[in-house]
Amino acid sequence: MKRLAILGSTGSIGTQTLEVVREHADELQVAGLAAGANIDLLKKQILEFRPGIVSIGSQELAIQLEKELASSSFKPEIHYGMEGLMAVAGCPESDVVVTAVVGMMGIRPTMEAIRSGKDIALANKETLVTAGHLIMKMAEEYGVAILPVDSEHSAIFQSLQGNRREDLDRILLTASGGPFRGYSKDMLDHVTLEQALKHPNWAMGKKITIDSSTMVNKGLEVMEAHWLFDADYDRIQVLIQPQSIIHSMVQYVDGAIIAQLGTPDMKVPIEYALFYPERRSLAGDRLDFAALSRITFEDPDYEVFRGLALAFEAGRAGGTMPTVFNAANEKAVALFLDRKIDYRDITAWIEKCMNAHKLKDHPDLGTILETEERVYRFMDGKESYV
Amino acid sequence: MKRLAILGSTGSIGTQTLEVVREHADELQVAGLAAGANIDLLKKQILEFRPGIVSIGSQELAIQLEKELASSSFKPEIHYGMEGLMAVAGCPESDVVVTAVVGMMGIRPTMEAIRSGKDIALANKETLVTAGHLIMKMAEEYGVAILPVDSEHSAIFQSLQGNRREDLDRILLTASGGPFRGYSKDMLDHVTLEQALKHPNWAMGKKITIDSSTMVNKGLEVMEAHWLFDADYDRIQVLIQPQSIIHSMVQYVDGAIIAQLGTPDMKVPIEYALFYPERRSLAGDRLDFAALSRITFEDPDYEVFRGLALAFEAGRAGGTMPTVFNAANEKAVALFLDRKIDYRDITAWIEKCMNAHKLKDHPDLGTILETEERVYRFMDGKESYV
Repeated sequence: MKRLAILGSTGSIGTQTLEVVREHADELQVAGLAAGANIDLLKKQILEFRPGIVSIGSQELAIQLEKELASSSFKPEIHYGMEGLMAVAGCPESDVVVTAVVGMMGIRPTMEAIRSGKDIALANKETLVTAGHLIMKMAEEYGVAILPVDSEHSAIFQSLQGNRREDLDRILLTASGGPFRGYSKDMLDHVTLEQALKHPNWAMGKKITIDSSTMVNKGLEVMEAHWLFDADYDRIQVLIQPQSIIHSMVQYVDGAIIAQLGTPDMKVPIEYALFYPERRSLAGDRLDFAALSRITFEDPDYEVFRGLALAFEAGRAGGTMPTVFNAANEKAVALFLDRKIDYRDITAWIEKCMNAHKLKDHPDLGTILETEERVYRFMDGKESYV
Repeated sequence: MKRLAILGSTGSIGTQTLEVVREHADELQVAGLAAGANIDLLKKQILEFRPGIVSIGSQELAIQLEKELASSSFKPEIHYGMEGLMAVAGCPESDVVVTAVVGMMGIRPTMEAIRSGKDIALANKETLVTAGHLIMKMAEEYGVAILPVDSEHSAIFQSLQGNRREDLDRILLTASGGPFRGYSKDMLDHVTLEQALKHPNWAMGKKITIDSSTMVNKGLEVMEAHWLFDADYDRIQVLIQPQSIIHSMVQYVDGAIIAQLGTPDMKVPIEYALFYPERRSLAGDRLDFAALSRITFEDPDYEVFRGLALAFEAGRAGGTMPTVFNAANEKAVALFLDRKIDYRDITAWIEKCMNAHKLKDHPDLGTILETEERVYRFMDGKESYV
């Protein structure tokens, strides 16, 4: 029996992880759940999966949850906020922590989980983007596995099995290209929120859907791949594969390429991370290649999708620069979702913040979090540089 | 240092294997070479690679070879015929035997190599097609590895690495479709020898080029995959992928598909078999996906490519039926190459022989070889049934 703590249990990855638990109740159980604000769903999850410890976004919500569970037969330990996330991440009853929270708030609980000796099923890419140098070192130190849940990184991870890392030549990170593939710069200027929220292939949360449309998400994935697979940026190539059938590929020193393909179903990478190195049967559609008829490829347009080019720049610069890239995007996307800025302003803000940044090398956690705050204050006009 | 014995050293796979040896002279050396009739090339190979033992097709050629080497500084032990092949296959100085002879004459030397404890880099598919039940059992008994050199089977083998065999759901064996993909039955009737010898993607020997055009080669590969990967015929699906970029795929129980892709370069599977589970760098073109632009898929037409349907029938029937399929094809192709029969007669002969066969289950080597002979005599009009 493998016991999971799920951070971000009411989100897209969290709920799909719980579906996997439901389908494999003989092998998986839930030790802890942490959610943000969706108290109704969290309550249902608590009553179904009976975790010993839970956490919710605020004290107010925690009190409400306690009241709502007062009459139920099952009462977990209830925590809240960052301390609550940390408590769930480090709870002694779990073996694996699924980090499916969105944003940089994932860093500290991930570190807590590693310190507590848990394997990490990693769906929070910001953790590696901003603190990859710390996280990968800690994982090695504490002897825990970092198992990617992102479909692309899971594909790379699957394609690396049975091969020596030293035989890896290049990572081919595939991208759908998003809803604006083929757009010119001018066309991008007139994109509305509604257009940006329509991803052609994957049903995901709002923030990641916007990030996919700008290809900033692919940029974050490039940085994530850099840390997960210890690959230089020169060895990571982004390739547009609009049907999202090839989830990513790796090329070896002999020229052989291994790829992982499939329908766009996040439960495949979730299951793979939870049962690695084994697989479990999974209901769902199978690829029908003859019906599919073809898979197409193109290079990304780095002029139009400036966010992707900036991600490579930020990754290569290293230090605190990826934090600036990520924080600027996080705030800009929030502003765009609130209809406070235009679509084109998202990458403009990233570039502006990166240009205004005084880079610090080898940042510790404090420096990373300070940098994040500085980006937000800079964007609010409260700092003259980042 | 890994020491190789190469059976069929002057053929397409043999010469490419020697190129790999040349490129990795610090890790590979040649202990033995066996060829059929190409004495000039064999002599060159002997002088370059200095094997301790060699064999050639006939006594006459062996005497000639001995004379030609009389004045050279290097003189190997010289054998000939089937005994010569067996001597090279079992020579104590080798670690791996590359079985790159064409046809059923590969069976006995492959068995001899297994009995002598050699790993097999298997490029002779007839061995598994006709005697898979004996070979795989012997390999297990003697604890030797059977490493596929065929590009498709190597692709499957590569795609299985790091996974449990019990998690395998289905093999997707890809096929270019050959030069007559899209042809109707009527169009196939008018195919000439020259047309059949033009393969769109791979440069290979004549026999296998014809077999590719009829898709009989793919049928042999289906049977080979059945034995190599212990897969029921219902779990082997042939998929047309005309660009020959995807060399084959496997689908797991979770729906995930792992594929091996690359340029059509036989040195990749040769190297993989020789250095497994490691890889070695290999010069050559790399796939450029954006330039490639697309990969297409279609189902095979089992009506037009009757040889492929017959292969599944022969494989499912088992026993001596695959031997009949293979022997009938071997002789029919030879007749076609000699312009003695028409193109459409190749599969017609296979079907006629299969229909005229009284199947024997669990055949031993003697029965398999007798069945082969019976097919030839039947085709010569000297037997009334096979």
